[in-house]
Amino acid sequence: MERSSGSRDAGPAVTPVAVVLPAGGSGERLGGATPKQFCAVQGRPLVSYTVRAMERISWISNIIVVVSPENIETMKSIIEKYGHKRVVTVKGGITRHRSIFNGLKVFVENEFSNHLLQKPEVVIIHDAVRPFVEEDILSKVVMAAKEHGAAGAIRPLVSTVIASAADGCLDHSLERARYRASEMPQAFLFDIIYEAYQQCTDYDLDYGTECLHLALKYCKTNAKLVEGTADLWKVTYKRDLYAAESIIKDNLSQQVCVITDVKEAVAQIGFRLHESLKSQVKVEAISVSLSRNDSHLQNIFSGQCYNFVCINDKKYAIQETQQLVDMLEKSNLPLLYPVVLILMHLDISEDISFSIGMEELTRIKKFAGEMKKKNILVYGLLVQYKLLQFVAHFRHCV
Amino acid sequence: MERSSGSRDAGPAVTPVAVVLPAGGSGERLGGATPKQFCAVQGRPLVSYTVRAMERISWISNIIVVVSPENIETMKSIIEKYGHKRVVTVKGGITRHRSIFNGLKVFVENEFSNHLLQKPEVVIIHDAVRPFVEEDILSKVVMAAKEHGAAGAIRPLVSTVIASAADGCLDHSLERARYRASEMPQAFLFDIIYEAYQQCTDYDLDYGTECLHLALKYCKTNAKLVEGTADLWKVTYKRDLYAAESIIKDNLSQQVCVITDVKEAVAQIGFRLHESLKSQVKVEAISVSLSRNDSHLQNIFSGQCYNFVCINDKKYAIQETQQLVDMLEKSNLPLLYPVVLILMHLDISEDISFSIGMEELTRIKKFAGEMKKKNILVYGLLVQYKLLQFVAHFRHCV
Repeated sequence: MERSSGSRDAGPAVTPVAVVLPAGGSGERLGGATPKQFCAVQGRPLVSYTVRAMERISWISNIIVVVSPENIETMKSIIEKYGHKRVVTVKGGITRHRSIFNGLKVFVENEFSNHLLQKPEVVIIHDAVRPFVEEDILSKVVMAAKEHGAAGAIRPLVSTVIASAADGCLDHSLERARYRASEMPQAFLFDIIYEAYQQCTDYDLDYGTECLHLALKYCKTNAKLVEGTADLWKVTYKRDLYAAESIIKDNLSQQVCVITDVKEAVAQIGFRLHESLKSQVKVEAISVSLSRNDSHLQNIFSGQCYNFVCINDKKYAIQETQQLVDMLEKSNLPLLYPVVLILMHLDISEDISFSIGMEELTRIKKFAGEMKKKNILVYGLLVQYKLLQFVAHFRHCV
Repeated sequence: MERSSGSRDAGPAVTPVAVVLPAGGSGERLGGATPKQFCAVQGRPLVSYTVRAMERISWISNIIVVVSPENIETMKSIIEKYGHKRVVTVKGGITRHRSIFNGLKVFVENEFSNHLLQKPEVVIIHDAVRPFVEEDILSKVVMAAKEHGAAGAIRPLVSTVIASAADGCLDHSLERARYRASEMPQAFLFDIIYEAYQQCTDYDLDYGTECLHLALKYCKTNAKLVEGTADLWKVTYKRDLYAAESIIKDNLSQQVCVITDVKEAVAQIGFRLHESLKSQVKVEAISVSLSRNDSHLQNIFSGQCYNFVCINDKKYAIQETQQLVDMLEKSNLPLLYPVVLILMHLDISEDISFSIGMEELTRIKKFAGEMKKKNILVYGLLVQYKLLQFVAHFRHCV
């Protein structure tokens, strides 16, 4: 079983924990043909963000994504394309509960694969369409499930909830403060939720949606309710896709690190760039040799600075960039949001004409393509530098 | 009482209808210092969109915006800046119910102004933070309120609703299909909701939020529930502001009308622009004389086309543009979303140098500034046209 050995192992780490991600929905509330979990957000399917949010957590052993039969191949190609690890794709049923039950079976029955996965002590059930889940809430529901048998995230109600009578008129309204919205993630001792699914009726499987309810009804387990943050919302309508896109963009652009080599002329440009950017974004500028494993750079990684401008006077120094990418990967950063990496080549010659050979262009494009799979967006910038001015020619390489 | 005489008058038109818009919230769920109703969305405060959504409906007589005392001046300046009509600003109370009650009092008590507004038969209660309300649902709740005394929009629940026990564990979950989220708008016979507010307790005023509940409890009126569309959602969190921004942008960019004068050389450019745009947006191209009230153009207006490219060979033909704006206003279009108006001046001379005098620039900037208050964004574009190429110099005038 694969496990990354990051330093982020938290409390639940000693407990085997798996995740079941039902992703079988048809997205009818969203409008449009593509189910919402497969809709592209900044060019990447929503489900891929959610899987990444899970796989960056080192104490999660397996991620079971349950999709409808017609989307099995789509899901497999997403896993392949974005290099997801520890993910098993399972065929869903016709309802949410049936899909989750199928997801749980991979640990107990031979129905879905020729070798059983190791049964976890705790299983997290989440939604493919809630991409912004953080380690903190996952850790909390897992700990609470260990103690209480079941646990789920809750949020205050946004609207008052009312019951209608048969004539379509108001019967009564609920006192908002006494109720909560049940959200995801939820966590269960595996044996409890599996038992509940085995016991429950076809009516439950076909018309129910609430796992906490099954645990209560069939295993007398009163789930611990854990107050979650506003991030836990579910992408339901088209406006939610808009919001998800904006949040991802917003997270993209918050910090930038300008890296130059130690050559004075280049370092000076880095300093100037720092000066002109600092009023708009949080920016750091450092001069390092990328070939040494610089501790300053490590500090920046652990401070979660996600965007880099690498300035050098060699044309598209892919080798050095590769070193930076390697360091990024080794640092085990949670690459939930794309990293933007701008390679800035300074041309300080007097020759007025810009040029780049086809071979070089192909090479940088290929490199950018590879990096994109790792959620790193590489852009190349060829800058002709004269003493007092920048003339920038932008080449979009992704 | 002002009333526009558009052709859009629907069923409720014969009934005097007013709107109370509570806008006193502090926006604590949003995070950030600015209450959400005053947050800028595409440069315009959210509450201004909601007011506009109401004022474009000809059968609504008065719009009472209730704001907390410290925001009275802010609200007044918004009304001034965006030229809102039929709006009265009223000081709110410390809770939502107290604010709505204050809003209703302007029709009955002399507390807020030295002359009473005419008491409406039906009053709509809406939220300042639900900008995307359409005439259809407003009309439906008003008609239902006339028949049943009270009515409110409802939506399916997005999450399961649960009740917690004193120990923070699940007590029970509600069967999702039996309940609905109570949304806005709601409508009431004025006398019923005013009576309910007069009868209700301080506890209701301080801790309740649901007007339908007050009508039921104090006037034995079971509100008619009207299924609303997904547009009715409430801007609650920061992600909702993102979504609102994207929806407004999206609505902006859907249709474009290219208008040229009847001169052949100019009409030809219009045709070419139409050809090159038609694969990306819905586009129409017409050649008209703006000085005549062209019926073709009227049809385009009534087809709710919001964006225009006006091409001519006179430099920044403000006068003609003013005619277009006048026609737009007379056509009584619901200008909820900004209209984009691009003035494209064709320079077909051989002279290579572009120039525009400071005086002209000042004039067009002033014009663009005036238009912006009317929710019309004016951009100027100076294009040097040689037989086979466009060289476009873009000047952002807003």
